[in-house]
Amino acid sequence: MVLPELKRRRDKIRSLMAQQHIDAALMACNVNLHYTCGQILNGYLYLPLNSPGRIFVKRPNNLTGEHIHPIRKPEQIIEILKEQGLPAPGTIMLEGDELSWSEYNRLAAMFPGSEVVNGTPVIRQARSVKTEMEVEMFRRAGMAHTRAYENIPSVYREGMTDVELSIEIERLMRLEGNLGIFRTFGRSMEIFMGSLLVGDNAAEPSPFDFALGGKGTDPSMPVGASGVRIQRGHTVMVDYGGNFNSYMCDMTRVFSVGRLPEEAYMAHQVCLDVQETVVSLARPGAICEELYNAAVEVVAKAGLSGCFMGIGQKAGFIGHGIGLEINEAPVLAPRIKTELEAGMVFALEPKIVLPGIGAVGIENSWAVTTEGVEKLTPCREEIVDLLG
Amino acid sequence: MVLPELKRRRDKIRSLMAQQHIDAALMACNVNLHYTCGQILNGYLYLPLNSPGRIFVKRPNNLTGEHIHPIRKPEQIIEILKEQGLPAPGTIMLEGDELSWSEYNRLAAMFPGSEVVNGTPVIRQARSVKTEMEVEMFRRAGMAHTRAYENIPSVYREGMTDVELSIEIERLMRLEGNLGIFRTFGRSMEIFMGSLLVGDNAAEPSPFDFALGGKGTDPSMPVGASGVRIQRGHTVMVDYGGNFNSYMCDMTRVFSVGRLPEEAYMAHQVCLDVQETVVSLARPGAICEELYNAAVEVVAKAGLSGCFMGIGQKAGFIGHGIGLEINEAPVLAPRIKTELEAGMVFALEPKIVLPGIGAVGIENSWAVTTEGVEKLTPCREEIVDLLG
Repeated sequence: MVLPELKRRRDKIRSLMAQQHIDAALMACNVNLHYTCGQILNGYLYLPLNSPGRIFVKRPNNLTGEHIHPIRKPEQIIEILKEQGLPAPGTIMLEGDELSWSEYNRLAAMFPGSEVVNGTPVIRQARSVKTEMEVEMFRRAGMAHTRAYENIPSVYREGMTDVELSIEIERLMRLEGNLGIFRTFGRSMEIFMGSLLVGDNAAEPSPFDFALGGKGTDPSMPVGASGVRIQRGHTVMVDYGGNFNSYMCDMTRVFSVGRLPEEAYMAHQVCLDVQETVVSLARPGAICEELYNAAVEVVAKAGLSGCFMGIGQKAGFIGHGIGLEINEAPVLAPRIKTELEAGMVFALEPKIVLPGIGAVGIENSWAVTTEGVEKLTPCREEIVDLLG
Repeated sequence: MVLPELKRRRDKIRSLMAQQHIDAALMACNVNLHYTCGQILNGYLYLPLNSPGRIFVKRPNNLTGEHIHPIRKPEQIIEILKEQGLPAPGTIMLEGDELSWSEYNRLAAMFPGSEVVNGTPVIRQARSVKTEMEVEMFRRAGMAHTRAYENIPSVYREGMTDVELSIEIERLMRLEGNLGIFRTFGRSMEIFMGSLLVGDNAAEPSPFDFALGGKGTDPSMPVGASGVRIQRGHTVMVDYGGNFNSYMCDMTRVFSVGRLPEEAYMAHQVCLDVQETVVSLARPGAICEELYNAAVEVVAKAGLSGCFMGIGQKAGFIGHGIGLEINEAPVLAPRIKTELEAGMVFALEPKIVLPGIGAVGIENSWAVTTEGVEKLTPCREEIVDLLG
């Protein structure tokens, strides 16, 4: 028996498959297996439209249960499906945006009589609307994330570099149960547990599609803290992934050492105003692009468009869906016509980079409810002085 | 001008391309760009057999220089190559084991008149033999790795769980400059910074192809520490990735709280004997399979075959190449006929799991020299008592 929660998730995928006349899915990627099977395994889920899913597992070798079949190689799946009396699918979907070209072709060759299509968009669409249990996982992650951030002033010591403070924050996060790994969709975005940006390092462009960049400490990891000493007059922006239970909660807070120039507080308030505006509009039916436009308008009125979401290299979004990966649907960006739905969870991160000072702004994680949105990261939002 | 080191690496790839009649490569994956360009970027390296490479970059937007071209989308590459007078390649290789099916197809469609082949094996073969500068990076990583491990007894406190000790080791590693991220080849192996296995948790099978498993603390991260308290009589095996400068150094050491049962020391000595035997045979021309067989023979003579490389679920190798990823060529395993070459770097990890006690054994990183091998991780090898 598959747990009702997993059945619900599989049925969300099935319902989208039916709309696109897809008869079965074969999934192999860790996050998709975790989503549909409740655990990560080295193997496959074969999910037919109208009969129970079958798990084919290479490792671990101690997994047993109804509809679980040990295999050594994926080609054995076909024989077992035949033995089980399952018909060959007319159309089957594979994870085309996630599997490598070679692995996709190997799996596709197992279904010579079927049309093989890219199923990643279907799976991501299903995953973009969370179940109540998934939202609850986010609530718990948001509380742990908040507890860790509240302790940040306690680990600051005068004279620290950005890397040294990062290390202590990583430890706080881990002590609250953070699993450490930071999952992204796609092959190109890499980061350790998150990013800490001090002063002008916040304006350094990175190759990755995060809201802000940072130089990093090595050409192999060009993002985030760069080894500079934390100084008075510079902001410290802390943006870590909140993976406490596989759901990637996302939260940013800003710190200072003593008092910052006044413009930092003004710009920070503009970001809080953006958040308030977007949150007041966010509800089922709201269109992502319109939320983006509303944000941009608040910033334009404040005269800060030039440094909103970076200077030099700007992020093209103000928010992004979160889930088992940090970059899920929907994206709050120009030309995105997606309507919010109850159960979607997103991070909203209006940020402003002030030359000579650093980044200010806010990021919280939000769940779309039937009426509006629920904040998942209930942590104080003002700029916090690390000196207390 | 490309740095001589990068030219050397590109020419290693070109030389293998020439053998296979491949006229050009288009690379997009982070580790391959880092290898050939010295940095990670969101973009592409076009590497023709007989003319200089061209970098096409989407992000960061501040990269300039000879043969560097900003683009918004990969299709622009073709126009630019034409403007530069470069001929269309007869055969071009793409990273077929690394790019997603969709991205590979998008890039392949840019070369309608060319034969498109999977270039991943060629690039991995080139990367498997390190340059002198790469070996030097490993030496430095090995020293930092050693310094961190030497401090482990200083962070142990009685009553700690495996997760709590992990967190302190992670902090030690980061303070020595560890970049944190742990790069693996392929989509299926995930881990945070490494693994710490206490007692019988070392026998828990995991979905991943690491030497040993461990239950982990969450179904989304089924490997390593499981939250158990560290107790007298159980071993503590510490196996962390040594990514201090992009090269994945690998080292395992075993700790205890007080004295262990005698059989732990005996089995540990068998692993040290395996290491000594393999190391005495390892030199250019030695065949991976033969090294594996020599190891297995030492263990069989000691009567410990049943618990070598795990019990229940066993690892099928005793060592693996390391480089920018933790799992490179060559692999020391049955049926692997690869001959060692000077410049190859590998981790050798004979390990034995004793029921009721835990894992013992050793792992060091080794560079193949013209004469034999050089140890890169010069850290004491006996079982260290955390109580001093």
